[in-house]
Amino acid sequence: MKIVILGGDGFCGWPTSLHFSKKGHEVAIVDNLSRRKIDVELEVETLTPITSIHTRLNAWKELTGKEIPFFNIDIAKEYYLFFSFVKDFQPDVIVHFAEQRAAPYSTLSERTKRYTVDNNLNATHNILCAIAESGKDIYLVHLGSIGVYGYHTTEMQIPEGYLNIKVESHSGELINQEILYPPDTESIYHMTKAQDQLFFHYYNKNNGIRITDLHQGNVWGTQTQETRLDERLINRFDYDGVYGTVLNRFMIQSAIGYPLTVYGSGEQTRAFIHIQDTARCIELAINNSPKKGEKVQIFNQITQVHRIKDLAETITIITGGEVSYVDNPRKDIEDKENEFFVAKECFLSMGLKPIFLEEGLISEIHDIAGKYQHRCDRSKILPPRWT
Amino acid sequence: MKIVILGGDGFCGWPTSLHFSKKGHEVAIVDNLSRRKIDVELEVETLTPITSIHTRLNAWKELTGKEIPFFNIDIAKEYYLFFSFVKDFQPDVIVHFAEQRAAPYSTLSERTKRYTVDNNLNATHNILCAIAESGKDIYLVHLGSIGVYGYHTTEMQIPEGYLNIKVESHSGELINQEILYPPDTESIYHMTKAQDQLFFHYYNKNNGIRITDLHQGNVWGTQTQETRLDERLINRFDYDGVYGTVLNRFMIQSAIGYPLTVYGSGEQTRAFIHIQDTARCIELAINNSPKKGEKVQIFNQITQVHRIKDLAETITIITGGEVSYVDNPRKDIEDKENEFFVAKECFLSMGLKPIFLEEGLISEIHDIAGKYQHRCDRSKILPPRWT
Repeated sequence: MKIVILGGDGFCGWPTSLHFSKKGHEVAIVDNLSRRKIDVELEVETLTPITSIHTRLNAWKELTGKEIPFFNIDIAKEYYLFFSFVKDFQPDVIVHFAEQRAAPYSTLSERTKRYTVDNNLNATHNILCAIAESGKDIYLVHLGSIGVYGYHTTEMQIPEGYLNIKVESHSGELINQEILYPPDTESIYHMTKAQDQLFFHYYNKNNGIRITDLHQGNVWGTQTQETRLDERLINRFDYDGVYGTVLNRFMIQSAIGYPLTVYGSGEQTRAFIHIQDTARCIELAINNSPKKGEKVQIFNQITQVHRIKDLAETITIITGGEVSYVDNPRKDIEDKENEFFVAKECFLSMGLKPIFLEEGLISEIHDIAGKYQHRCDRSKILPPRWT
Repeated sequence: MKIVILGGDGFCGWPTSLHFSKKGHEVAIVDNLSRRKIDVELEVETLTPITSIHTRLNAWKELTGKEIPFFNIDIAKEYYLFFSFVKDFQPDVIVHFAEQRAAPYSTLSERTKRYTVDNNLNATHNILCAIAESGKDIYLVHLGSIGVYGYHTTEMQIPEGYLNIKVESHSGELINQEILYPPDTESIYHMTKAQDQLFFHYYNKNNGIRITDLHQGNVWGTQTQETRLDERLINRFDYDGVYGTVLNRFMIQSAIGYPLTVYGSGEQTRAFIHIQDTARCIELAINNSPKKGEKVQIFNQITQVHRIKDLAETITIITGGEVSYVDNPRKDIEDKENEFFVAKECFLSMGLKPIFLEEGLISEIHDIAGKYQHRCDRSKILPPRWT
């Protein structure tokens, strides 16, 4: 199959690209290297020593004989370049990771807010427009976010995308309807993912584009079977206060002997998935595509739900060290306690065998946080205090 | 009050600007003249001979002594210019008409699709961002569209923005919730209005911005009390197949002795409002603003609902002539029959006394379509056939 990975140089895109290349698919990466450039802007580096995109790709070819062409295209800004690439490459599937993906970055300043909106919305729309214009049946798989549902405490289980409701008719009868789950987002980043859903609904209905939207949780873990093959293939590990997720922060704090900083009470519940499972889920989504004429398919791409304080305690049990409860320095997400009941049956029913935190965490702490701790800039671990 | 009208040179913006200037408010117009430039692109002209923005504004000053400053700013592209204008002018209210507003134009080509998305979404976001950055309590009134609700036949009444639903809890109990009415849009244009709602929800919740979103129906009529004062103040009348709305097409067809072309069965139902009532509704929305901390306020800005075939027949009763039923040439809106029960109590309860079609139509046919029929380009009345 011909598979294009948009954002294929990024944290999720890179291991996914290798995963499909390994399986014998014809893979192409489109990326404008924006994630590396944001590192320059934030004056941080991934803890792991990632190599340049061409070094990575040459190493992959040397090790496996497989070639992955790379196209530096800004999808949000260079529509015609992207469209001519699509016409030439003729993909069967486009996997869309090409959005600014950090909630804290999306609320850092007026500039990062406007960049996130402009980039994410125009990128998604340009992709849909190019597929429609191509006249080909190109299947789109998009990385959404579990955060589109909102983190409010709810007495009901969050479904996979669609919600069955009852509304009153003229005559006072209750009518059943299926609607897209009403979004309630906590950051500009999550808002753009909710807005993406409206793009998908329209282009699916109007142009018959087959689409799967994956509402992914916090991704943890660094390496996959493929990125472990050679250090030149290593994946990113972000530990800084803007791009680093909570689990990475805990691991690096533990490695350098600092207290693990839990924001607020730690009673917040979040959904998680291992990076290896991200690649597997994309593969399952490709192998289980909707048929022509079917509505947008939505899956929750999560495997476990944890309380933040439990995560911190699990790590201190493995490594020693202590937990420190601090005021929430982030303005984009509230630190209030919540329950989070989220349906996750779809991928399990397709055969996903998840990597659970309990089994993957120890190697992650030793092989990544421990091994590369000398590369850590301690001043970057906590987020900047927003005004 | 200091009121900024974004898109103040356009069909709704111009009469609204004069309406507030007449009432003694300090009005400023921000517009990039995009609507006039699209006329150039489509090779059409408004039926009425509108004058240039400075001729209009000078005439207004000559007639009333009132000055309305004009700022040529592209809000979607020139954020910093717009932000410095906001800081200098210090408006109490911003009225936002600055979006590409024709559904047919928004689906004409890949270029107009992408323009509509890029312009409308970045414009709305830049405005919200500028208000948030200003640190001032600037009230935003936005022109939405009744089309965000979708035109599907429904057994229930479409509410003003929010819908009460019942959903099942874990224990199988029915829980009441209030949600934003689930949008289901028929064009790229309407889709952007639904996406705007998510911007408003976020900035209202996160930054406390006070916002009213007005879901307006098809606007008919050309002149208001103010634009009638002098021919140099005359408002636009679009009759072409892309920007002209159904009623204008019928009037010009009637004036030049052509059959009135009804698309499909004519059983489609649409919501209408007179241009004079648009200005009055904006005024009511300003006088009835939500309080700090209140959610986004949504009103349906419509006064009547009509079937298309009834409109055509009403006109032929006044003017003679005949009705011709043709296949729908538009790809953006389906021509299927629908019922359309829409709540419209909010503005009526605030005191709106609507101008009904029955009273305003005859003068519109004589004073506009009849008077300026010599300016009509007959080749432009039907929409281009989309491929």
